[in-house]
Amino acid sequence: MLQLYFSPMACSLASRIALMEAGLDARYHLVHLGTKTVADDNSDFRGISSKGAVPVLVLANGERLTESAAVLQYIADLTPERGLAPPPGDPDRYRLQEWLSFVGTEIHKAFLFPTFWYKDDASLAKPRARIAQTLSVPAAHLTDREFLVGQRFTVADAHLTWALLLLRAAGVDVAQWPSLAAYLERMQARPAVREAIATEMALRKAITPSPA
Amino acid sequence: MLQLYFSPMACSLASRIALMEAGLDARYHLVHLGTKTVADDNSDFRGISSKGAVPVLVLANGERLTESAAVLQYIADLTPERGLAPPPGDPDRYRLQEWLSFVGTEIHKAFLFPTFWYKDDASLAKPRARIAQTLSVPAAHLTDREFLVGQRFTVADAHLTWALLLLRAAGVDVAQWPSLAAYLERMQARPAVREAIATEMALRKAITPSPA
Repeated sequence: MLQLYFSPMACSLASRIALMEAGLDARYHLVHLGTKTVADDNSDFRGISSKGAVPVLVLANGERLTESAAVLQYIADLTPERGLAPPPGDPDRYRLQEWLSFVGTEIHKAFLFPTFWYKDDASLAKPRARIAQTLSVPAAHLTDREFLVGQRFTVADAHLTWALLLLRAAGVDVAQWPSLAAYLERMQARPAVREAIATEMALRKAITPSPA
Repeated sequence: MLQLYFSPMACSLASRIALMEAGLDARYHLVHLGTKTVADDNSDFRGISSKGAVPVLVLANGERLTESAAVLQYIADLTPERGLAPPPGDPDRYRLQEWLSFVGTEIHKAFLFPTFWYKDDASLAKPRARIAQTLSVPAAHLTDREFLVGQRFTVADAHLTWALLLLRAAGVDVAQWPSLAAYLERMQARPAVREAIATEMALRKAITPSPA
């Protein structure tokens, strides 16, 4: 059985969504990213992946695959009948890769990452100044499209859905882009997406110390 | 004919290396990223891509593909006989995608990007503190391997070669990791890599105002 190392509401949420949309069973291992420990047994997460980052997907043969762009394509290709990625060789496959890269580099690493990293307004000014231009790209694309790639839900949608959820937490009001707000609503109406988010929100609440 | 919009020594260098390793002719258009103009005719680069970022590959059918991870896989798949990417369906294809993502997110966006963005040491402290851990991952991987994926040069090597060249410019001495220093030397000994770098270094020098 596949296994996914994840942290609640971290970018590994996209991999959970993909697994659920694919109808694939998996064992889920919660990782505390602050201490780099696996919650199951308090073991060192760096022993699972030297990167110390989620997602880590343990394949059926025991190999470990990291990086959302790779993990998401791997999951999609396990169940081609679900259409979670255009088949290799289809021109749209490169569009899928283009969106996976855009979400991972421009939204995640160039905005969300510094936003949760820096605490001072001076350092935050640069990523904040840039996010509107960044989000205008998917906003324009989704004005007359239901999904990022082709006519159906793909793992690129799982990735962007996660990023848009985190933008809210990072203080960016997605309502500024009506096409993105409508898209996020559509995605969250999908049973697999809704269930994945509900599961991780509950876990996140459970591991976050409540204010005294 | 393919066309590549690039900026000298920007991450689009990896796409130039891939095109040259593939033996593919292309028209190259220099972009001034500071002013977002195309050098050919001073036109607005945002008219080519709303992202305003390189690389942009114009395909034979006129469509434009962006994001290094997508562009590099597209180029590799045009000439499968060159082996610049494991074929789709090969388990190593996901390893290629894993490395492309790692270079694009962890090295480029989480280190090089803030390094060239911020000018104050306080803001630079966080990316600087993180880069050694980041580079330990490819350094360990390359200790007993000639290439990132499999037994031959792939577009993932083109991507990492570019990133390692920029690390030097960002003040990180790659010599700290002997396996990375040896790898970079091996890659730069390849005729296509050497020629791509020489071309872009000359262009970079030509467009950079010399000190009075």
